[in-house]
Amino acid sequence: MRWLSVHPAVELAYLGSESYAGQSMNSVYPHLGRVNHVLRRFEPTEVAGAADVAMLAVPAGHGMKIAPRLLESGVKVIDFSPDFRLKRPEVYQRYYKAEHACPDLLQEGVYGLPEAHRKEIAQARLVAVPGCYPTGALIPLLPLLRADLVKHEGIVVDSKSGVSGAGRTSLELRYHFPEANEDVTAYNVATHRHTPEMEQEIGLAVNDEASVCFTPHLVPMTRGIFSTVYAPLSDDGRTTKDLIECLRSAYASDPFVVVHGEGSIPHTKATAGGNSCHVTARADERTGRAILLSAIDNLGKGLAGTAVQCMNLMFGLPETTGLEMAAAYP
Amino acid sequence: MRWLSVHPAVELAYLGSESYAGQSMNSVYPHLGRVNHVLRRFEPTEVAGAADVAMLAVPAGHGMKIAPRLLESGVKVIDFSPDFRLKRPEVYQRYYKAEHACPDLLQEGVYGLPEAHRKEIAQARLVAVPGCYPTGALIPLLPLLRADLVKHEGIVVDSKSGVSGAGRTSLELRYHFPEANEDVTAYNVATHRHTPEMEQEIGLAVNDEASVCFTPHLVPMTRGIFSTVYAPLSDDGRTTKDLIECLRSAYASDPFVVVHGEGSIPHTKATAGGNSCHVTARADERTGRAILLSAIDNLGKGLAGTAVQCMNLMFGLPETTGLEMAAAYP
Amino acid sequence: MRWLSVHPAVELAYLGSESYAGQSMNSVYPHLGRVNHVLRRFEPTEVAGAADVAMLAVPAGHGMKIAPRLLESGVKVIDFSPDFRLKRPEVYQRYYKAEHACPDLLQEGVYGLPEAHRKEIAQARLVAVPGCYPTGALIPLLPLLRADLVKHEGIVVDSKSGVSGAGRTSLELRYHFPEANEDVTAYNVATHRHTPEMEQEIGLAVNDEASVCFTPHLVPMTRGIFSTVYAPLSDDGRTTKDLIECLRSAYASDPFVVVHGEGSIPHTKATAGGNSCHVTARADERTGRAILLSAIDNLGKGLAGTAVQCMNLMFGLPETTGLEMAAAYP
Amino acid sequence: MRWLSVHPAVELAYLGSESYAGQSMNSVYPHLGRVNHVLRRFEPTEVAGAADVAMLAVPAGHGMKIAPRLLESGVKVIDFSPDFRLKRPEVYQRYYKAEHACPDLLQEGVYGLPEAHRKEIAQARLVAVPGCYPTGALIPLLPLLRADLVKHEGIVVDSKSGVSGAGRTSLELRYHFPEANEDVTAYNVATHRHTPEMEQEIGLAVNDEASVCFTPHLVPMTRGIFSTVYAPLSDDGRTTKDLIECLRSAYASDPFVVVHGEGSIPHTKATAGGNSCHVTARADERTGRAILLSAIDNLGKGLAGTAVQCMNLMFGLPETTGLEMAAAYP
Repeated sequence: MRWLSVHPAVELAYLGSESYAGQSMNSVYPHLGRVNHVLRRFEPTEVAGAADVAMLAVPAGHGMKIAPRLLESGVKVIDFSPDFRLKRPEVYQRYYKAEHACPDLLQEGVYGLPEAHRKEIAQARLVAVPGCYPTGALIPLLPLLRADLVKHEGIVVDSKSGVSGAGRTSLELRYHFPEANEDVTAYNVATHRHTPEMEQEIGLAVNDEASVCFTPHLVPMTRGIFSTVYAPLSDDGRTTKDLIECLRSAYASDPFVVVHGEGSIPHTKATAGGNSCHVTARADERTGRAILLSAIDNLGKGLAGTAVQCMNLMFGLPETTGLEMAAAYP
Repeated sequence: MRWLSVHPAVELAYLGSESYAGQSMNSVYPHLGRVNHVLRRFEPTEVAGAADVAMLAVPAGHGMKIAPRLLESGVKVIDFSPDFRLKRPEVYQRYYKAEHACPDLLQEGVYGLPEAHRKEIAQARLVAVPGCYPTGALIPLLPLLRADLVKHEGIVVDSKSGVSGAGRTSLELRYHFPEANEDVTAYNVATHRHTPEMEQEIGLAVNDEASVCFTPHLVPMTRGIFSTVYAPLSDDGRTTKDLIECLRSAYASDPFVVVHGEGSIPHTKATAGGNSCHVTARADERTGRAILLSAIDNLGKGLAGTAVQCMNLMFGLPETTGLEMAAAYP
Repeated sequence: MRWLSVHPAVELAYLGSESYAGQSMNSVYPHLGRVNHVLRRFEPTEVAGAADVAMLAVPAGHGMKIAPRLLESGVKVIDFSPDFRLKRPEVYQRYYKAEHACPDLLQEGVYGLPEAHRKEIAQARLVAVPGCYPTGALIPLLPLLRADLVKHEGIVVDSKSGVSGAGRTSLELRYHFPEANEDVTAYNVATHRHTPEMEQEIGLAVNDEASVCFTPHLVPMTRGIFSTVYAPLSDDGRTTKDLIECLRSAYASDPFVVVHGEGSIPHTKATAGGNSCHVTARADERTGRAILLSAIDNLGKGLAGTAVQCMNLMFGLPETTGLEMAAAYP
Repeated sequence: MRWLSVHPAVELAYLGSESYAGQSMNSVYPHLGRVNHVLRRFEPTEVAGAADVAMLAVPAGHGMKIAPRLLESGVKVIDFSPDFRLKRPEVYQRYYKAEHACPDLLQEGVYGLPEAHRKEIAQARLVAVPGCYPTGALIPLLPLLRADLVKHEGIVVDSKSGVSGAGRTSLELRYHFPEANEDVTAYNVATHRHTPEMEQEIGLAVNDEASVCFTPHLVPMTRGIFSTVYAPLSDDGRTTKDLIECLRSAYASDPFVVVHGEGSIPHTKATAGGNSCHVTARADERTGRAILLSAIDNLGKGLAGTAVQCMNLMFGLPETTGLEMAAAYP
């Protein structure tokens, strides 16, 4: 809402909500100041008449119920749910414990990571916004895999996330301030649902099956994901310089990826409130491993920012429209 | 820089810096992404040829040295230093322990609080951006004083500030993360330099001398100031409803002041990264006191945001230009 | 539990719990390590046979139900609920919206602030542990009132509390980490239930009726309360030195009150995890007000620490037994 | 000081300090309350006459200068500096850029990790307190290596540390509250000085050379280190149950190691202010890796707590003496 309400090419045509129907945006979210559109109980047929594109900020299982109806009526869909991210219905079923409702649409849906699928997104009717963790891990990893600087076997992804990733409705004890503050812990070890997204996109990059050992952690901050990716160097001679040059070359014209050189390291703080992804890489020649580092705002580049970026691509707008403002450092 | 670099009516003509001369903005501040202007050692004559207005982000004592030269050469000045805030040179000297270098310019300079001096700012060549604490205290207080709902004797201002108010160069122990985190303390008790600004503006509002008992506190967050202002109710019959109606009426057409009603309370979080000020008031009839509450981002409405707002006014632009984006909640 | 489990004179005879009956302490609270006593559904008759004293960590309304039965069977009671803090049943009813179940016991119960009622506590069968806010406000205030250095009319108490004061069971949105982190707000403005405790104890000190204007705030930390108390100086000549000398003299032999001089200020961090209260005072001669500052750990001196201290007094133990360990700075 | 000042078998005989000589402990560290011993400029000959054991809280390079003189005069030494941790002088020189001053004492010094070297510590004159990161990584790792459940080739250690690890004297920008708060970053990637400690102890456990890929991270909290260790499972059939049983068996009688089962995960918060280490393990059978998790307080079990534990062992005291108090949750 923060980005859409000031986006020069966007008119907010329809705001649906189950929980807050009948209330105005700024009474539910006072930070929005004078954005006082009234939320309505969601009615797909009303959207069809009102909008060119729908952004679905819904949980798993709801995207695949709503998207088909909107697409049929000519509304493009940008889905925040995980329902159209995984190309294989059986993988979806394994991780989400539910049969996929429209496996054929799975093939049409585009994985909405502009850094990997910019052209397909521009052509798409249906875009699946990637998970926040895969975005952070894949942006530094894909170019190095494609350039064969690192191997795709034996990849470890260790991510550190702010607590806002939990959303606003899950008032569990572990997100209670006195519990989460001054604490670090891991969760969903070896079982997190974002794992198959990483494996799918790595597999596509190297044209092979891939498996990833992924551990997400909760750290005591609101926004931000810092990912540390360990991948075997493909060759003993690979240096930090090689890795960074590859990243610089891959992202030379990408407006939102900032590549740090040998003397500089990404910080999540440099991304908070914006749509950037900061990355760098180091070759640990002693142990034969590349160490890739990335920082994003889990609610920015990790979710809503990428959604707006995809929308810009889908409608032929300059990719940065409405997303130009820098992070709110410090 | 975050606001100016995307402001539609601004061209960054000249960036001066003593500490970082020769470096690019984005190497010093990576969050700025692609804003790669090179910083130059400050040379007033160069500014004169290049710019219509200069924003001086300098410490006390430097504004009054630089501003006269810029004004003489036809450049308007928006000064972040405290040098042109206090109208009486002797008060400046008492609090800043230095003689004022240009007391005549003091009278011309306008106290840059748009909520109090919108018209004067629009006409000004020289604007002094207010201190962050006075901004938070005065916005809820001035309308109630003018409407005679509260008295100006016996006012207590108790403010809670995030640590970014200390700036980036004062690496003192008290701002070291392990010290400031999980800690609250008070500082400059009964002696803070922002006190006379409050007293001056209150005095102007009621056309009398005023004294304020002010205590600033440090709380463990980066951005934000929450101010709690205690003022005697002018009359026993005054109710919370009266106070809130007065605030609503005073700020009905102000784009950046959000007035909360009886069921809602300001939060600093709703202002972080934006230019808004959230306020409300309660009448404590048992003790005969009004309790006024305000929340701002000390770096937004408390400093840089107000500076951009003043610039808009000085150049006849819509007051909200470039400042429309909401706070980065959560 | 942290203090009791290592207290040299304490044997944990009976641990009752409604929510966790049947579980062991260290499975519910892993930080307790090897403290593996099993929690039992609370049964007062069992306590009578097992214990000399009962600590009731129960909400409002439950202390007055349980305490009489325990007292009858010869068990002394230290009650964390507010039920025995207020001497006047009608005040209890006004603030807690319930009739008091045993108004006669109200008179026998002792307000468990050792700094004010050390002797009565040593003689008591029933002690009411004070609220955390009153503890922080009263410790610096009472000696100055008794010495007539400040007046009891027009007192303002502005307190800043960490979020652990909310307890572990109220998983409300406002305590959700992404909401409470990087935020300051006020709550229960002019209506907080701790107000009458302050008024009662101030009234006792000056032998008059007293009213207090009290505003509690939430700040983004786990533990700690910082209180800023504004009281009119009784006489224009009163200085900071007078105020500090009075505090030093009053607490010269108190083991847990640390009085800071003119060059030093209390920090909540210096109290975290311990039972100390740090205080100081400043005379703002310009405005005729004393500004008193205090820092406590809301779960230490503000609750459990004071409870253990009262227990020591009730059983003739040295007051510091089991409470000697310093705060866990930083 | 917090532990020593209440340790029943300790008398504080001599407190040396270069920075604070002449001041009292509680004026430098107000949280210590009434611990008012005066600090003296350090003079080894005075220590010899006064103490049985010296704890050296000094930086790299100073332990090896001071320890020999104390040992000669019959004082046992517990050294917090890294000077006696690494057995090979050439490794010390590579990482600390200085020649070792007394390589023969290196062989006598015992690596002070009670969980690995309890018996040697009990016999030692000279104990080197381990680095905080190695403590967190080695406690879960060593038993699994010794039991051949995981392999020692290809180990990755990813640690997340609170900022207090930086100490109190390094007031660098990166530890300034507004920079470190709401931020995660990595530092000393592939070059951290704690790496060779891990490699030495792993090598000892498996009687082979070992190399570790180690990345330390800064997270926005004061105390705590959470370590995530990735090690190849030695055999495809190894399960989570196998790993946890091995840890439980290894630490069955260890008073400070808490092993979490399949339904529970370590949290740094459960260790803050205490001397415990919480660990668990998971087998990621899909990727053939064990994921080991550990939580410590970097200033407790990660430094001062272990030092006190070693002292207890060196003097034949029960290992837990003075260290019984639980962490200060929440």
